[in-house]
Amino acid sequence: MSVEHARSGDIVELDPAARTRLTGPVALVRDDRLEVMRWVLPAGRSVPEHLAYGPATIQCVAGDTLVRLAAGERRLQPGSLVYLAAGERHTLEALADSVLLVTMVLAVPAAGQGADLFARADRPHGERTDGGRS
Amino acid sequence: MSVEHARSGDIVELDPAARTRLTGPVALVRDDRLEVMRWVLPAGRSVPEHLAYGPATIQCVAGDTLVRLAAGERRLQPGSLVYLAAGERHTLEALADSVLLVTMVLAVPAAGQGADLFARADRPHGERTDGGRS
Repeated sequence: MSVEHARSGDIVELDPAARTRLTGPVALVRDDRLEVMRWVLPAGRSVPEHLAYGPATIQCVAGDTLVRLAAGERRLQPGSLVYLAAGERHTLEALADSVLLVTMVLAVPAAGQGADLFARADRPHGERTDGGRS
Repeated sequence: MSVEHARSGDIVELDPAARTRLTGPVALVRDDRLEVMRWVLPAGRSVPEHLAYGPATIQCVAGDTLVRLAAGERRLQPGSLVYLAAGERHTLEALADSVLLVTMVLAVPAAGQGADLFARADRPHGERTDGGRS
């Protein structure tokens, strides 16, 4: 049942071919301050608006994914990454079968290992709700 | 004089071709908890033993680099990364012109922005010195 994460010094393969056989996130590295995930998004799949509590990068290992931010849209293709400050809301939409490498700084250094890393942004605490729902 | 770091939402190119025109580290992303650097190592260049205060990953974007750790040697080639826990001492040696993407969690969340990120490991504080110098 348990997931095998890399130990310090382990080599981790980015594995662009993962898009042919997997869907969803797999944690490759997880310690008390850092998490690295491989996220496989089949073409047409979206990830609803969410945010990470710490800063993060999303790197495109394979495919073509659209990242929607408050500031606009970004196109993530192999060889590029997008930097997201802590709390930056975003959605993802795979335009082609995609493999993403998501690297997140965990916000709670010592106690948060079991905590959820993501918050759905549709009902953030203490924030305005300017969304389109009237 | 100032270096332009990515702002939240910015796309950053991994830029494997950087090995043809640059040497050394360039900070691509830097906030109070996360730093991402592109590090160009020409073939034959080494980085002496050092450690990061927070956990880190080193990804090979181009080339071929040897990572030496207490546990042994690791070969970093395009498509792979190595995970290093906080404080893991290591050296790097480029076997070919290499471009590395170094992602580090900064250890001092709020106050450390101007602090050195690396410690040379030859004289660590409060550690045994078992090194080869008699």
